[in-house]
Amino acid sequence: MVEYKVAFLGPQGTFSHEAASLVSDNLVSYCSIQSVMAAVESGECVQGIVPIENSIEGPVNLTLDSLIHNFDLKIKNEIVIPINHNLLAARDMSVDEVENVYSHSQALGQCQPYLERHGITAHYTLSTAAAAKRVAETGQDAAIGTLKAAELYNLKVIDTNIQENFNNETRFVVLDSNDSPITGKDKTSISFSLFEDKPGGLYEILSLFAKNDINLTKIESRPSKEGLGHYIFFIDLEGHRLDDDISLILKDLERNTSFFKILGSYPIFRDDLFK
Amino acid sequence: MVEYKVAFLGPQGTFSHEAASLVSDNLVSYCSIQSVMAAVESGECVQGIVPIENSIEGPVNLTLDSLIHNFDLKIKNEIVIPINHNLLAARDMSVDEVENVYSHSQALGQCQPYLERHGITAHYTLSTAAAAKRVAETGQDAAIGTLKAAELYNLKVIDTNIQENFNNETRFVVLDSNDSPITGKDKTSISFSLFEDKPGGLYEILSLFAKNDINLTKIESRPSKEGLGHYIFFIDLEGHRLDDDISLILKDLERNTSFFKILGSYPIFRDDLFK
Repeated sequence: MVEYKVAFLGPQGTFSHEAASLVSDNLVSYCSIQSVMAAVESGECVQGIVPIENSIEGPVNLTLDSLIHNFDLKIKNEIVIPINHNLLAARDMSVDEVENVYSHSQALGQCQPYLERHGITAHYTLSTAAAAKRVAETGQDAAIGTLKAAELYNLKVIDTNIQENFNNETRFVVLDSNDSPITGKDKTSISFSLFEDKPGGLYEILSLFAKNDINLTKIESRPSKEGLGHYIFFIDLEGHRLDDDISLILKDLERNTSFFKILGSYPIFRDDLFK
Repeated sequence: MVEYKVAFLGPQGTFSHEAASLVSDNLVSYCSIQSVMAAVESGECVQGIVPIENSIEGPVNLTLDSLIHNFDLKIKNEIVIPINHNLLAARDMSVDEVENVYSHSQALGQCQPYLERHGITAHYTLSTAAAAKRVAETGQDAAIGTLKAAELYNLKVIDTNIQENFNNETRFVVLDSNDSPITGKDKTSISFSLFEDKPGGLYEILSLFAKNDINLTKIESRPSKEGLGHYIFFIDLEGHRLDDDISLILKDLERNTSFFKILGSYPIFRDDLFK
């Protein structure tokens, strides 16, 4: 556990809060991804936790764009949180007593079949945390939210994992001024742009990894903001930037790209990493 | 000009409306990307026009996901529209007479330096078209909007191209039940998933194109919704799916991917294509 202040994307009781709670007890909630990053860059907080991709919705564009264009921060850790939705109420009750449920539109959408099956009417709130707060204050109806929200607002958990899709995970990154040392089971995040959009440009870059049997766990592109067809690529690879083979490849890559930035090396997430 | 009804993403007076106006005079406005696609699939409209990527904001995820998961439509054309913002008012006036301006948050953000330079206060509306409508109705203040909106609401164009970034373009696709025949200057959009996330998986696919000197104009990934690290790739390549060399590569690709879908072949956009 880090002793210093750690920034996260609020409000309290969300999945971001769950992820951040793994890292520190001394958390400060910020209202945007960019204000979390600014808090770390200014030294207000020693680390910051933001979402970077979700297995259903895809990349969090604001996180990727801000890491490239606006901040010079390193990824020190990754945290993967399953997005499990729970039915929460102010008192013990059975699912079939619930008539109305409150939550964020995305959570309601992901639990739609469950709500239909139980004849529950859905109502929108701005966040899952706002729904839990409402139920705690009124003592009525139910909310779809995190176990963190149940704990925070002293709600009963009526049912767990009520979402339709069981492959729903969000990956968060812990941002710091430095990345992590070699642990032997590491991942490295890099970003780059090609010199020109010639046939085989990305192919040549990928060949550097393929020839050395380096596994790529993510490849993503974002517009470079210089017009259609101009991209910044984001690649996650297995290994540490200081490993001998990877260090050589990254030097080669830097020579063969018009823009190159290492976002950091960090241990591959395991459930027991923060316990 | 197509004689039949063509669906576009409304409201009227937006950049989507500008793009759709190039294709037909007989336009029907729909309130979501998915309802545009549904209108084409059901035969209510013969074609539909939706945005697919912007040079600053990146891909339109809902368009990509819907083309894969929910609809079986083909791309018949692409249309690229420069996102130029204009200052519109109900009467002729100089920029320095304008004190208040209304528009969508994205347009206001892109024109921020201009507004600061002229001491103009920004107010939010739900769309650029809603801002133009407001100015037309009240006869007061100014709106940031399209030339289409000026025409539609009979507004004076006080100033043009007031945005900061001059690389701002949006690419639209014309969806139909069939794609286009060979013209000699074509592009093909495909999507696929790899069998497994082994080292060099994407590299091997890209090698098929590189070895044949086929230029890729876009590469994008979206989550396959099967968990982190599982992707559907979107590639745009130069050439037609019925060209001899490309037809062979696509057959090879189909054999070497777990999911494969051709989204369509269509002429590369030129300004004179719809005139």
